[in-house]
Amino acid sequence: MLIEAISVIPEVFQPYMDASIMGRARKAGLYELRAYDLREWTHDRHRTVDDAPFGGGQGMLMKAGPIYEAVEDVSSREETKPYVVFFSPCGRTFDQRVAQRLATKERLLFVCGRYEGMDERAYRLADEVLSLGDYVLTGGELAALVVADAVVRLIPGALGDENSAQDESFSDGLLEYAQYTRPATFRDMPVPDVLLSGDHAAVDRWRRESSLERTARWRPDLLEQADLSEGERAFVRRLLEDGQDVGGSDG
Amino acid sequence: MLIEAISVIPEVFQPYMDASIMGRARKAGLYELRAYDLREWTHDRHRTVDDAPFGGGQGMLMKAGPIYEAVEDVSSREETKPYVVFFSPCGRTFDQRVAQRLATKERLLFVCGRYEGMDERAYRLADEVLSLGDYVLTGGELAALVVADAVVRLIPGALGDENSAQDESFSDGLLEYAQYTRPATFRDMPVPDVLLSGDHAAVDRWRRESSLERTARWRPDLLEQADLSEGERAFVRRLLEDGQDVGGSDG
Repeated sequence: MLIEAISVIPEVFQPYMDASIMGRARKAGLYELRAYDLREWTHDRHRTVDDAPFGGGQGMLMKAGPIYEAVEDVSSREETKPYVVFFSPCGRTFDQRVAQRLATKERLLFVCGRYEGMDERAYRLADEVLSLGDYVLTGGELAALVVADAVVRLIPGALGDENSAQDESFSDGLLEYAQYTRPATFRDMPVPDVLLSGDHAAVDRWRRESSLERTARWRPDLLEQADLSEGERAFVRRLLEDGQDVGGSDG
Repeated sequence: MLIEAISVIPEVFQPYMDASIMGRARKAGLYELRAYDLREWTHDRHRTVDDAPFGGGQGMLMKAGPIYEAVEDVSSREETKPYVVFFSPCGRTFDQRVAQRLATKERLLFVCGRYEGMDERAYRLADEVLSLGDYVLTGGELAALVVADAVVRLIPGALGDENSAQDESFSDGLLEYAQYTRPATFRDMPVPDVLLSGDHAAVDRWRRESSLERTARWRPDLLEQADLSEGERAFVRRLLEDGQDVGGSDG
């Protein structure tokens, strides 16, 4: 996969993408990163990428011109057309399904705005506009890094273990079960006995119930879409009806 | 504001927080950043922070011990107790209201997990557990950077212009209006006439309608909570009933 980003602060991409899992995936040849300085596509002495908004108001907007030239020029550098992603609070909310879809692309091009926003006409270049969530950031760079991280970790081999991206939150529409590692008792907090029992079927059952309980407690909105058996639906209904401390098994 | 982060890759914080608006805010003394390596609080030769999960399964978990020691030690270094934030898909979904609340804290401590997750007992240290959205990342570092960015930009003076954090998406429960800058016509795409008219009242009206249209088109879920006048509610109802190309005014 080729991941490219156009930004006025292209230097912020490499340090994160060099670290830890992203760095190992890159060294393993699973993806390549290229970050471009938007100012390369300006033509004035001050390398201007922003201007005041028509109609007045505070702050500066990114001009459409350099963005068009940058996207067109970068796109033409490889035979494969990039899938162009912009970021805006108006965009589609990024989620794990979008990450899975983007992980199948050969070439992703992230266009990162800054300042108060972008000239609306620039968004016509986008194949997709994404929003990380209902909050405002100073620019699209962190959004691009978040999407790159979520996507790269889904490339087979990126996690060093092909199965570990399966067994986690959202992959089956539920939150992940509670997890524990040594010591078995830490500061008077014991691990649930069943996890020490060696009874794999019992462990699996406990984990599924932990997932259901945590989802019912913290994200009941996810339950409607989740793939549950009849027995599991009944289990969740009982939890919700009892109004008990749902998820008590993991504190 | 003092912002601290505990992570196994503490080197990823500075490059982003040095750039652009975050860098200027730091140089202006609006906040201070300290990133700590979790491995400082290990006691074995390999500086181990992870271990296999009880009950079996793939991947490694962050051990509770080093996290407890790190949070306790870092907390004790200043008189002001930090507000401790962990990240997990099980957490409360981060949004602009949370950012506004965190922006009032004197001291924020972000604890960033990696690998397959954390020993559940570590989360007891958290004053708050946040989730960026319904996607899975390789660690909490990008989440911490996103929250730090969203919070720092709300500190008065951080944007260089005290009002510019007011006039934007989510601040009034709506998406922001479409914005344009020069040239007035770019590649056959003209700016809406009203924005060139100099009629401030008409511009304000157009912008409010653009906000309402964009929210109705892309995020109708936000309308229920938004602070709208009776006239605006009627305007939105007409838009939704007509089923027209809502938001046509800004392409």
